[in-house]
Amino acid sequence: MKIIDEMHKERLDSILILNPINITYLCGFKPSSPSILMVKDETVLFTSKMDIEGAIINSKIPVEDFKSLDEIKNLLKGTIGIEGSMTLETFERLKKGSSFKTKITNIPERLRRVKSNDELKNIKKAIDIAENSMNKIELKESMSENELAAQIEYKMRINGSNKAAFDTIVASDTRSSLPHAEASNNPLKNPVVIDWGAVYNNYCSDTTRTIIETEKHEEIFEIVLEAQKKAIDVIKPGIKVSYVDKVARDVIEEYGYGDSFIHSTGHGVGLEVHESPSLSKRYETKLEKGMVITVEPGIYLKDEFGVRIEDMVQVKNKGRVLNKIKKKI
Amino acid sequence: MKIIDEMHKERLDSILILNPINITYLCGFKPSSPSILMVKDETVLFTSKMDIEGAIINSKIPVEDFKSLDEIKNLLKGTIGIEGSMTLETFERLKKGSSFKTKITNIPERLRRVKSNDELKNIKKAIDIAENSMNKIELKESMSENELAAQIEYKMRINGSNKAAFDTIVASDTRSSLPHAEASNNPLKNPVVIDWGAVYNNYCSDTTRTIIETEKHEEIFEIVLEAQKKAIDVIKPGIKVSYVDKVARDVIEEYGYGDSFIHSTGHGVGLEVHESPSLSKRYETKLEKGMVITVEPGIYLKDEFGVRIEDMVQVKNKGRVLNKIKKKI
Repeated sequence: MKIIDEMHKERLDSILILNPINITYLCGFKPSSPSILMVKDETVLFTSKMDIEGAIINSKIPVEDFKSLDEIKNLLKGTIGIEGSMTLETFERLKKGSSFKTKITNIPERLRRVKSNDELKNIKKAIDIAENSMNKIELKESMSENELAAQIEYKMRINGSNKAAFDTIVASDTRSSLPHAEASNNPLKNPVVIDWGAVYNNYCSDTTRTIIETEKHEEIFEIVLEAQKKAIDVIKPGIKVSYVDKVARDVIEEYGYGDSFIHSTGHGVGLEVHESPSLSKRYETKLEKGMVITVEPGIYLKDEFGVRIEDMVQVKNKGRVLNKIKKKI
Repeated sequence: MKIIDEMHKERLDSILILNPINITYLCGFKPSSPSILMVKDETVLFTSKMDIEGAIINSKIPVEDFKSLDEIKNLLKGTIGIEGSMTLETFERLKKGSSFKTKITNIPERLRRVKSNDELKNIKKAIDIAENSMNKIELKESMSENELAAQIEYKMRINGSNKAAFDTIVASDTRSSLPHAEASNNPLKNPVVIDWGAVYNNYCSDTTRTIIETEKHEEIFEIVLEAQKKAIDVIKPGIKVSYVDKVARDVIEEYGYGDSFIHSTGHGVGLEVHESPSLSKRYETKLEKGMVITVEPGIYLKDEFGVRIEDMVQVKNKGRVLNKIKKKI
């Protein structure tokens, strides 16, 4: 396993994985109860009675009954890699009375950045489900934001998504200026920002479209679209994520809306809808072949309206947009 | 605020709250981006540009722009209470170069156990939405587990729930023996375990019903029902949670199915679908007036079938079942 090589490179004697997402990544089984994956020269998944039947069927690595943390602590010595997402509560229990050292490692998150062919297939299928579901909905002005969100989520589920990848955003009229507005009972009124995603085999999709109407909407839409296009155009292996962010931000700043682009340009998508790398000015991570990222600039005009356009892009020799749904719906 | 009294009792000079659920509890606004609520003699919510508009409208406490963690660190001295749910990554950033001491505190989680009248109203409304949605569904044998789950979630949303409280469980036939089975594309075949919940104003409901058919199902159903009834009957303020668990477990053990009851008897419900207290043999927490807990014994017969019955109970002078939906649907 790749993780064992990485473990040796970081001079760790073992890695303990508690984050269910990282466990899913490494063994193919998603635990529903507290479980621990121990990476040593061999790897084992310890899981509770609640999950053991499912784990035995689905895990790619050997499964044992999770009896107690103390039992696992006794198996460890030397320097143990632990996840930054481990809680302090768990960390205190892990350290109590133990002789090993601990060191935070992000090996699992780093490995997850580059997608395998199987992972990519799942992501593409999640995109298909999300787009086909949206395309089947007849938008009516009498609908509320909640009703549209409910229909999207229902159709995604019927089409094979085990759930929505995140709380579907349907934000219309002035609420479209709130980037993370939850759907409300307000009736649909343009512009409507719709940000939705499906989950297929635990892999997520994440897409945003904005329905526009007036000339002013169109003007802002075209700026956001230009920012998105230029950012996608610079994507290739070796480019820093901060540069992709800068390219999108520069376009929006040139038109005088810099202060209204209040989030980063994108993020990785896979088992989590937001994962590494973050396309932000704060990070110097270089793009690698096989990464899947969103590119989603937006302009939010307070008390007026907002526009965001988000597509998923696979990093190949250049950026390849995975979405098929048209930009104007 | 109650939290300031508790802070003084624990000799803390300040408490930092990062967990979005605890922030929601303390200020009435649910942040969608990293935010920090600082409790000192005055409390302040620091939130990002993404959320500040919504926070100013909805937060009960003053809101300021979240510029950097360093800025907040400079405001702190003495002993700072932090949440056990804080991640190691954040903890390291918090400690770096700072002079204050930190101490894990569970004051927010402890306060959340006892519900106010407003919280109780939200919980009851979430239960109403979940039950009314279920009652409107016509169960057909041609339906798949996924289709039933999709219909439940759609109807809950249309009826005012912003989302499902958790991934709806619809587990039929032998899959009912897996307590946390996700819905699949299998057609419905009795018994069917349905575990579903709505969210109203951020508050959750959590209920399980099992549809049965054969005499063997009926026999197991009656044992689980007896365990649930006896556990509910002992609920009153001052009783230990481990005792409620024991009462349910004893019934199931007497009938010889002790090994097939593979989870704890229940848990608190509120802003989170699973919150303190856990009704487990491992905890000695005493029930208090105002707590809302689930009572959900189950019997899981491997490769055969499972039965679980779950109701939500308010702790008053005795236990008051909040669910109205009948036990056999």
